Amino acid sequence: MISFECDYAEGCHEKILERLRETNLEQLPGYGSDMYCESAKQKIRAACGCPQAEIFFLVGGTQTNAVVISSLLKSYEGVVSASTGHVNAHEAGAIEHGGHKVLAIPQHDGKMDAGELRSFLQDFWQDENHEHMVFPGMVYISHPTEYGTLYTKRELESLAAVCGEYNIPLYLDGARLGYGLESPETDVSLPDVAKYCDVFYIGGTKVGALMGEAVVFPKNNMPPHFLALAKQQGALLAKGRLLGVQFDTLFTDGLYFEISRHAIEMAQLMKEGFQKRGYRFLLDSPTNQQFLILENRQMQKLEKLVRFSFWEKVDADHTAVRFAASWATRREDVEKLMEVLDSCGNA
Amino acid sequence: MISFECDYAEGCHEKILERLRETNLEQLPGYGSDMYCESAKQKIRAACGCPQAEIFFLVGGTQTNAVVISSLLKSYEGVVSASTGHVNAHEAGAIEHGGHKVLAIPQHDGKMDAGELRSFLQDFWQDENHEHMVFPGMVYISHPTEYGTLYTKRELESLAAVCGEYNIPLYLDGARLGYGLESPETDVSLPDVAKYCDVFYIGGTKVGALMGEAVVFPKNNMPPHFLALAKQQGALLAKGRLLGVQFDTLFTDGLYFEISRHAIEMAQLMKEGFQKRGYRFLLDSPTNQQFLILENRQMQKLEKLVRFSFWEKVDADHTAVRFAASWATRREDVEKLMEVLDSCGNA
Amino acid sequence: MISFECDYAEGCHEKILERLRETNLEQLPGYGSDMYCESAKQKIRAACGCPQAEIFFLVGGTQTNAVVISSLLKSYEGVVSASTGHVNAHEAGAIEHGGHKVLAIPQHDGKMDAGELRSFLQDFWQDENHEHMVFPGMVYISHPTEYGTLYTKRELESLAAVCGEYNIPLYLDGARLGYGLESPETDVSLPDVAKYCDVFYIGGTKVGALMGEAVVFPKNNMPPHFLALAKQQGALLAKGRLLGVQFDTLFTDGLYFEISRHAIEMAQLMKEGFQKRGYRFLLDSPTNQQFLILENRQMQKLEKLVRFSFWEKVDADHTAVRFAASWATRREDVEKLMEVLDSCGNA
Amino acid sequence: MISFECDYAEGCHEKILERLRETNLEQLPGYGSDMYCESAKQKIRAACGCPQAEIFFLVGGTQTNAVVISSLLKSYEGVVSASTGHVNAHEAGAIEHGGHKVLAIPQHDGKMDAGELRSFLQDFWQDENHEHMVFPGMVYISHPTEYGTLYTKRELESLAAVCGEYNIPLYLDGARLGYGLESPETDVSLPDVAKYCDVFYIGGTKVGALMGEAVVFPKNNMPPHFLALAKQQGALLAKGRLLGVQFDTLFTDGLYFEISRHAIEMAQLMKEGFQKRGYRFLLDSPTNQQFLILENRQMQKLEKLVRFSFWEKVDADHTAVRFAASWATRREDVEKLMEVLDSCGNA
Repeated sequence: MISFECDYAEGCHEKILERLRETNLEQLPGYGSDMYCESAKQKIRAACGCPQAEIFFLVGGTQTNAVVISSLLKSYEGVVSASTGHVNAHEAGAIEHGGHKVLAIPQHDGKMDAGELRSFLQDFWQDENHEHMVFPGMVYISHPTEYGTLYTKRELESLAAVCGEYNIPLYLDGARLGYGLESPETDVSLPDVAKYCDVFYIGGTKVGALMGEAVVFPKNNMPPHFLALAKQQGALLAKGRLLGVQFDTLFTDGLYFEISRHAIEMAQLMKEGFQKRGYRFLLDSPTNQQFLILENRQMQKLEKLVRFSFWEKVDADHTAVRFAASWATRREDVEKLMEVLDSCGNA
Repeated sequence: MISFECDYAEGCHEKILERLRETNLEQLPGYGSDMYCESAKQKIRAACGCPQAEIFFLVGGTQTNAVVISSLLKSYEGVVSASTGHVNAHEAGAIEHGGHKVLAIPQHDGKMDAGELRSFLQDFWQDENHEHMVFPGMVYISHPTEYGTLYTKRELESLAAVCGEYNIPLYLDGARLGYGLESPETDVSLPDVAKYCDVFYIGGTKVGALMGEAVVFPKNNMPPHFLALAKQQGALLAKGRLLGVQFDTLFTDGLYFEISRHAIEMAQLMKEGFQKRGYRFLLDSPTNQQFLILENRQMQKLEKLVRFSFWEKVDADHTAVRFAASWATRREDVEKLMEVLDSCGNA
Repeated sequence: MISFECDYAEGCHEKILERLRETNLEQLPGYGSDMYCESAKQKIRAACGCPQAEIFFLVGGTQTNAVVISSLLKSYEGVVSASTGHVNAHEAGAIEHGGHKVLAIPQHDGKMDAGELRSFLQDFWQDENHEHMVFPGMVYISHPTEYGTLYTKRELESLAAVCGEYNIPLYLDGARLGYGLESPETDVSLPDVAKYCDVFYIGGTKVGALMGEAVVFPKNNMPPHFLALAKQQGALLAKGRLLGVQFDTLFTDGLYFEISRHAIEMAQLMKEGFQKRGYRFLLDSPTNQQFLILENRQMQKLEKLVRFSFWEKVDADHTAVRFAASWATRREDVEKLMEVLDSCGNA
Repeated sequence: MISFECDYAEGCHEKILERLRETNLEQLPGYGSDMYCESAKQKIRAACGCPQAEIFFLVGGTQTNAVVISSLLKSYEGVVSASTGHVNAHEAGAIEHGGHKVLAIPQHDGKMDAGELRSFLQDFWQDENHEHMVFPGMVYISHPTEYGTLYTKRELESLAAVCGEYNIPLYLDGARLGYGLESPETDVSLPDVAKYCDVFYIGGTKVGALMGEAVVFPKNNMPPHFLALAKQQGALLAKGRLLGVQFDTLFTDGLYFEISRHAIEMAQLMKEGFQKRGYRFLLDSPTNQQFLILENRQMQKLEKLVRFSFWEKVDADHTAVRFAASWATRREDVEKLMEVLDSCGNA
């Protein structure tokens, strides 16, 4: 059955497998000190327009969020996130396991509003009892968000400005960063991300790698002994080369951007197909994830023919579902999806 | 200046001081194994109508919440609380410091609704991705709530029923329990609390003691090695006798209830005075804390003459404030407060 | 039965009770912001010869160790302690509960050797894999130690020098500090402690208070938001006045030193009595705790007549036991102890 | 330069790469729920002679130790380990980060003695103050140990018996398990491990995989919601297939054992070479790691010609070093090593 269930259903881009094969029997030092890690870092620095950036490779998204957030917060601090933020909802309490509260503020199609953030921070500092509360110690955003939406450059700038006023870092979860950067509707480039954020990660797991996320500290601000912090949290890969080779490949000749672009094209194709067929969208997503509201009986019919994922209940009769394209999505599968929709009688 | 700022502004009831003095030079074993602790436990068991209850004395409210909650939760579980719950808002992240998320659900005048709790639990268990989320492992309520409101017996029964369906404990934070039990508007007795809750604490700090909270496990369900758990969290008092003597005194001849009743009478006097003078209430509190909405200029005038505490901003021109009565509030001070209000031109 | 079981068997010095009574109904602000806390801090600063010292009152020893240590360490750091250090052996894992390893090094009659400390730190930093190990982030000593022994001024200076070389704080656990300072065999004064240590606490629980420990940061080095850190760990007392009044009393007219001196005199009396009767000592303690090695049958005979505490097994036939004097020990009880020894046929 | 620095210098066995390539574009469900994980589990169950075993795949060794140990311990418990245990010395405090103390007992060539373990447990439970200490909640051993040594079947049985007496689980860290099982000097088989241990892991990272460890609960004793526990610690791999495919390959046609045997043969070749040339051994290792004591000048000469790793200082003039063989070690490189030794003038 064709599947649009998620963007990590396949292994990795073939060039990565090829490079892993080529380098497989080289004897390399461990824990990320090999030459492929170094080369990958150089290429990422270049792509970020940020020669001084410090970079650390980790294995997965939840792990990355946990390690980064706990490395930046004092123990009496928490991380501010939109209520829909991955760290607040879908990481099994990894942030709290590290001792920190997620301070949830309202979300708007998955995004945080800079004005609301400022109010939240203001209220905290004006509260005379704030020493009895959790200090807001950093801000977490995802880009694209969990709803596929994107911040504009202006919005990023505003968030960065608020963080600057309160002297707390802005952290961007880029699990799907490539898909955000290659959206036709964005004005945000990778150097913009590096400019406005204090730390962010470039997601590999969902964008062509077997696994791996590249954490970037663009401002000479990697916490001391970050390797020890990662090790302590079980996040230090012995054969760091695996991450090095993968990111080195992804950032050679723009592969990361090229395969992200492909995913976006496939998503646009789906989106247009859904629109043409009168489907109702949960919201307007400019990236690789498309969210539809289906009537429940229609959903049941459809799920026998194609795989997608449940998103959330809308009301007694309707459900929001997600169709995800990825670097690996084939045009013919999107076309087959459209045929399936037609055969179902459409929306 | 007369003060209604909080219910822990004074030391303790004089009978407690007297008993501390009388027993002061007795040589007693430490860590709660003395005869006064044992006697206090017996009296609390009797007052709870619960001969098998296990009881442990701790020093303060945040400490008690942290120790109890972490002792009952598995590491992948969190505690469900109304968003206004003390554990969610005013304990500096003590629950998260212990590794657990506070799962906030809506509050209604500080209370949690059993139907909304059931929906929340249902949604969690129906979500096919729930293994990636924080498991709701127990329910926290406060009684009186942070807003002075009270659950009815029926409401406690409903909450207990939902907890029973999902096999998770119901925990009641009784920092001000005496003031709840002695409200003329409640139908909830201490044996009711012991019947419906799986664990609760009887607050001493705010009800006549120097410090101290009595944690009650009414159902033979104290976690094994609770003393070690308390010790590990720095919560085990060397001279446990201090807590034993205090609770023994409070539960001799109904002192705890008597002084709570006094506080309620003083609060009712204030409430009637406010009502008579046309003051606007934030909500209707049947206990020792009364919440008014003041016009800001009036508030500024008033705070030069009497002490009360800021509660929350209502709008640009109005502020909610709290006046608290306690076991130590003197009738003449309430009368003086009324004179002050009159002199201010009232509401 | 007369008891020399520990130094926290009684309540508190009568002057403290008296002051608690006198101030009992004063309405005071909470959480340590009252005037008695302020006054106590001033007197402690004076006694330390350290006008700029920052002071924070906590409730108990384990709590104090946990809060201080976790406030000073980065998450990848541990605390170096002699293997017999209270934090390593008798705090139910409170330090590890806060996420930190206790790095145990050898003990010599309860003390740490500055040379061995230096070697340990040297070895760590020279190990090329040290990023995979726990960083030594501070040094913990107790004075008197768990074995009643004392560091000389020279030894403290050496430890401070090693800590200085490696730029890590020296923390002194003074649960029984008074008994150390008043030993006739010490050359260490309170200002010396303030000079050589980066943080220490003056124990109240074991030296005349109901409870309470005064943490002193003599070098303008209290971690920011220490109150929030304490609150988060359930260590912030609502009625902070209790600690303020107690330490204010203890540091008025030298009461703390006076009652410590009394304990030492009583301990010396016991010691001489033991010596005269030919008892064998586990080690030579110059403070309030005396450690004897008893033949097991003799121990069993003795424990029917007087209370003391088990310390450790020495061999199949011998046991080390502890006799503790305190501020509350009465001369007549020591004399009675000697009679008991005589009646037992002595050593 | 030829290298014997460690056993994770290369990528993975070519058959694994081949299988990853073959399955790369299959769309598979995430988080370990794919068919390759299931198949791998079946094969591991068979190899363990344990049809009911529950198996969970994790990424690395420190991560595995942290997740397993924290999932089995109550918060007031610690893990007993030989002082040289990896969890005690080389995991950057990962166990303490999870809130637990490592209770170190003496090591004998890296091994724990069952008699000493029993004494330790006995002493703990007999200590009347044990509620103030860290409870021994499980036992950790490594096999092979960090020193390459092996437990005999008899020794495993004894350790299991002691654990049984005290009703605590025995956990075996098998980071290099294959190299232990294929040593000519062992009488311990994989089914023996499954019989005597309550949980263990079969190491992949050091035995032919890119990464991955297979945690085995042989006695229907996997803690509930282990997946959530792993997720919470950032240890749940999105593309769990990577681990499934690798272990499925390793446990097809005995590949895991075959490549382990090869490593052992290469190690024996080295060992004989060293012996023949008069080298002094730190201890007698029957597995893939060989430990030599070199005179420092000789070490400096040698390290210009071949890579090995520093182990520990022996005295001012001598150093212990480690030569590791692995599944990837080539016979010709061992031969070249011998030439190098000869050219250096031998021991």
